[in-house]
Amino acid sequence: MTSPDPNPYAAGCAWVNGEFVPVRDAKVSIFDAGFTRSDVTYDVVAVWNGRFFRLGDHLDRFARSVEQLRLQLPVDTDGLAAILHGCVARAGLRAAYVDMICTRGVTTTGSRELLEHKNRLYAYAIPYVWIVPEEQQALGTDLVIASTSRRIPPESVDPTVKNFHWGDFVRGQLEVVDRPGTAVVLPDGYGCITEGPGYNVFALVDGAFVTPASGVLQGVTRRAVLDIAAEAGIPAGAGILRADDLRRADEAFLTSTAGGVMPVVSIDGRPVGEGKPGPLTTQLRQRYWDAHDDPRWTTPVDYSLSSEG
Amino acid sequence: MTSPDPNPYAAGCAWVNGEFVPVRDAKVSIFDAGFTRSDVTYDVVAVWNGRFFRLGDHLDRFARSVEQLRLQLPVDTDGLAAILHGCVARAGLRAAYVDMICTRGVTTTGSRELLEHKNRLYAYAIPYVWIVPEEQQALGTDLVIASTSRRIPPESVDPTVKNFHWGDFVRGQLEVVDRPGTAVVLPDGYGCITEGPGYNVFALVDGAFVTPASGVLQGVTRRAVLDIAAEAGIPAGAGILRADDLRRADEAFLTSTAGGVMPVVSIDGRPVGEGKPGPLTTQLRQRYWDAHDDPRWTTPVDYSLSSEG
Repeated sequence: MTSPDPNPYAAGCAWVNGEFVPVRDAKVSIFDAGFTRSDVTYDVVAVWNGRFFRLGDHLDRFARSVEQLRLQLPVDTDGLAAILHGCVARAGLRAAYVDMICTRGVTTTGSRELLEHKNRLYAYAIPYVWIVPEEQQALGTDLVIASTSRRIPPESVDPTVKNFHWGDFVRGQLEVVDRPGTAVVLPDGYGCITEGPGYNVFALVDGAFVTPASGVLQGVTRRAVLDIAAEAGIPAGAGILRADDLRRADEAFLTSTAGGVMPVVSIDGRPVGEGKPGPLTTQLRQRYWDAHDDPRWTTPVDYSLSSEG
Repeated sequence: MTSPDPNPYAAGCAWVNGEFVPVRDAKVSIFDAGFTRSDVTYDVVAVWNGRFFRLGDHLDRFARSVEQLRLQLPVDTDGLAAILHGCVARAGLRAAYVDMICTRGVTTTGSRELLEHKNRLYAYAIPYVWIVPEEQQALGTDLVIASTSRRIPPESVDPTVKNFHWGDFVRGQLEVVDRPGTAVVLPDGYGCITEGPGYNVFALVDGAFVTPASGVLQGVTRRAVLDIAAEAGIPAGAGILRADDLRRADEAFLTSTAGGVMPVVSIDGRPVGEGKPGPLTTQLRQRYWDAHDDPRWTTPVDYSLSSEG
């Protein structure tokens, strides 16, 4: 028997202008500087098995990003957490992609002065997003080092402040637009690897995993993998990853809140190791998902917040 | 006597999802890649005294930008022009800021594949925007060369494809956030001047005006000034403008569709020339506005398109 009143939030629940709305109604003014100047920061936290993963880390990073751009949130950290719980609870999701976004907003006068803008907070929860589909992850992903695009340098836009400046990534993605499912990573101007659209990269080079130390988002999944590797006794650290080193890596993977640990099996058309997900990568991937039930790193969603009360 | 049915487009008219709406209803989905990846291009044309200024140049540049990003418009050039005329006519504006925007849009499947997105066209007309208020232009603007931000380089994002990647500009603007009305221009990584948020820059150095040749938007107002200078016999061209040259310039001004020719009277706190708008700058500014009545460069707005027919 179908319900006469299906959940209006079944496709996801958003928080816009101070109220919860179905995601189809989640819209931004065409005049919001978050759109017209990409003057915006955001963060994404996952819910898995009904628990937020490293929620505190995401809230902390988001707060730092907001401060860095001299934006102001209309709520404190507890208030923001309650909104995120509310979005997930209303949507009734056990596995969710939960986004929080702060834009510069608009001025009532049309003034361009940054501090005269009324900043806006948006949030939403939708079903969990896989950058690389789960079934594809077991087979592994093909990776290309973009040859026509370099990562926007930190002296122009700070990559540690999570942002929507993806023009460099889009240009890289256009290189492989006729090769569906192929991932892209961008070099900087010095022949070193940075990151890809929405993910960090790890490579096993000379017996240790290395992930680029700078010029990248300090990803929470990246941090989690470094923590997990340390606990498992697998050598891994942040450092310089030259394009040449990535190409000769014995194993490689991508990390993202939206997909976790995603094995890479070829780079620029040449197989990585034996051309299948490497044994250490597979071990880290398993431990990463196991950690989603670890009380140290997780926060149960408060599903009592599903009512409008 | 007030009208019982005031024009709903008095504050401006937008074209969204195939229909004309008041600008307060002009919104973008929070899932549109134009927002979430700033995967978007746009163009702005001015209407002055009821005439579009160099409409063909703006439509041509917009078409090139759309093609460069491998986006597709739902209408051809004539169709787009009709939408722009319709926005201006419905708003009943004689002086307007007219924006056309094409975003990557959304996929119905949640896929990240670029070519699977349904691209979106937005447009709107609002009362003419002055980046530097008209009354301030007579006095001149203070300019600062940003010291904490460098322009996003062309190898990352192509500045000739007009875009919303303003994080570098915002960082520069934050340097002068406590000095209202102060404009900012960004250097590249080689000590050369590029452009500012929404404007090109010209400097009179050793007897000729120079505007940066590359690493910048090829502005239509910039082009118009070069044309006007040629007609007036004022030496002006595109070239390399080093920061040191800008600082010792005898005259300087900014150019933008939203404000025209905007005299600069100080740079980094030191007066340009005599600290007031220079004579050649003033002459170019006058000729620029006179050109808005020149049939060679203008297109009368078709105000008959104000009905819903």
